[in-house]
Amino acid sequence: MIIGDMQRKCGFGLKKVMDAIEAHGGTTLLATGITGDDARLALAAVQAGARLLEPNHPAVALARGHKGVKSMHNAEAIRHEIPFEEMCKVVAGVRAVVGPEIYITVGAPGTFTETMPMPFTDEHAYALASAGADGVHCHKSTYADLKDMVDLCHKYGMLVDAYVAHPSDRHLFGIPAETPAQVAETAKKMQDLGADLIGLMTGMSYEGVAAGEIAKPVRERLEAMLKVVTVPTLAEGGINAVNFKAFRGTGVNILVVGTAFDDIARKAVADTVGVFLQR
Amino acid sequence: MIIGDMQRKCGFGLKKVMDAIEAHGGTTLLATGITGDDARLALAAVQAGARLLEPNHPAVALARGHKGVKSMHNAEAIRHEIPFEEMCKVVAGVRAVVGPEIYITVGAPGTFTETMPMPFTDEHAYALASAGADGVHCHKSTYADLKDMVDLCHKYGMLVDAYVAHPSDRHLFGIPAETPAQVAETAKKMQDLGADLIGLMTGMSYEGVAAGEIAKPVRERLEAMLKVVTVPTLAEGGINAVNFKAFRGTGVNILVVGTAFDDIARKAVADTVGVFLQR
Repeated sequence: MIIGDMQRKCGFGLKKVMDAIEAHGGTTLLATGITGDDARLALAAVQAGARLLEPNHPAVALARGHKGVKSMHNAEAIRHEIPFEEMCKVVAGVRAVVGPEIYITVGAPGTFTETMPMPFTDEHAYALASAGADGVHCHKSTYADLKDMVDLCHKYGMLVDAYVAHPSDRHLFGIPAETPAQVAETAKKMQDLGADLIGLMTGMSYEGVAAGEIAKPVRERLEAMLKVVTVPTLAEGGINAVNFKAFRGTGVNILVVGTAFDDIARKAVADTVGVFLQR
Repeated sequence: MIIGDMQRKCGFGLKKVMDAIEAHGGTTLLATGITGDDARLALAAVQAGARLLEPNHPAVALARGHKGVKSMHNAEAIRHEIPFEEMCKVVAGVRAVVGPEIYITVGAPGTFTETMPMPFTDEHAYALASAGADGVHCHKSTYADLKDMVDLCHKYGMLVDAYVAHPSDRHLFGIPAETPAQVAETAKKMQDLGADLIGLMTGMSYEGVAAGEIAKPVRERLEAMLKVVTVPTLAEGGINAVNFKAFRGTGVNILVVGTAFDDIARKAVADTVGVFLQR
């Protein structure tokens, strides 16, 4: 008796995404990292125009200094230890501050390709939806796991954004596909399985790209994905305030930006400490 | 049988403070706000040279979006609702990231002038010390409450930084004293009660001071305090990266800066969102 309600809820979520894409001329921003989980900076991002936010468990591991972790790479190894309820609290807090119009997709223990057996059940999906999530940021790496996630999330009115990865990625954040043809095939199959938004892991940071350019292999993969996908598309991985320009005009709808925000906030703080200490 | 141990622990804490003051030419920084409770930015502040940090419960209320609170003023009204254990976790997380050399003083439910009956008992002091706090940021507004706090904190090896307030302050963050003579008398009595660091609430923000200047009444109060106090001194309230310069040369040892860091991080994030959205 909640099927219709939750289909409607999914529709509201999708409208938020589509409206943001349209408002920003075809390419909008999904703000994550410190702008996804710290309510002070989530609010600042939203007041500056961001309409999509993503709290996630590795970022919260960094925020909380979990086991003294200092880098995102190391945070990925222990992110599953962040209590699921903690992620629900983060979502609820950010939602309370940014209001109902903002789209929130959430990464939580069990929604990524985890290194330990982290369950994601009806209770988990219900808890995230109840906390205020519109969607789940899914980094599963098999079709079977993605299918389970899509079915569960839809049941509780949440959309799923899922990703195509590269087999050589340091952390596996999606279903791996090597050649552009395989990327197209994978993206198409993800869409057929019901993924509501489909992204490409661009790995910009480790491609060593020049400012404002996308490495050729990344561009070819992106074009392959964009050609077959009809749902909203994303690009994630190493995108910053310089190289993002290369994505404008490719047709990708959403740029996922996290570490770049962390770095910018860190630099602002560090520079100001330097002023106070007159260094 | 822990008295000697804890006296020794207090000595270690004081040495961290004195070393920071000396290293920074007589005036150092106590970084708080987002640099006190977010492990990512606490680490950035420390890497830039900050040696004293202060997580506190109103800032954590903002960080967590508690009840949708968006301003520090409103956070002060509900700060006591942040679970005490949450503050212990924040201290432990920041400590895990910044290491043992950094001085951490903490504001937690019960250490400020709270609007509800918030107990601060042996268990609370023990919990904060165990989490990694070197001191307690005390905003009690009577001598009796300050005395209780000093005795409890010293018992568990923590120093107390306490403050002289102004009777007309919007939020009461210390023992109120109106004239410079009363400030001197109050500060002297606080020192006699065992406060290890003594600060003045400067209310810079609501004095409407010009850049780089201290309003005359604030300067007179500061000079009155500095004349009688022999322990390390602090100035807190509305100090930012412009007006702080006026404090150099007054002889005050520690500038407490929180909201200025929040604002700087917010602006950095907002500006960058603007770049991504090409506004």
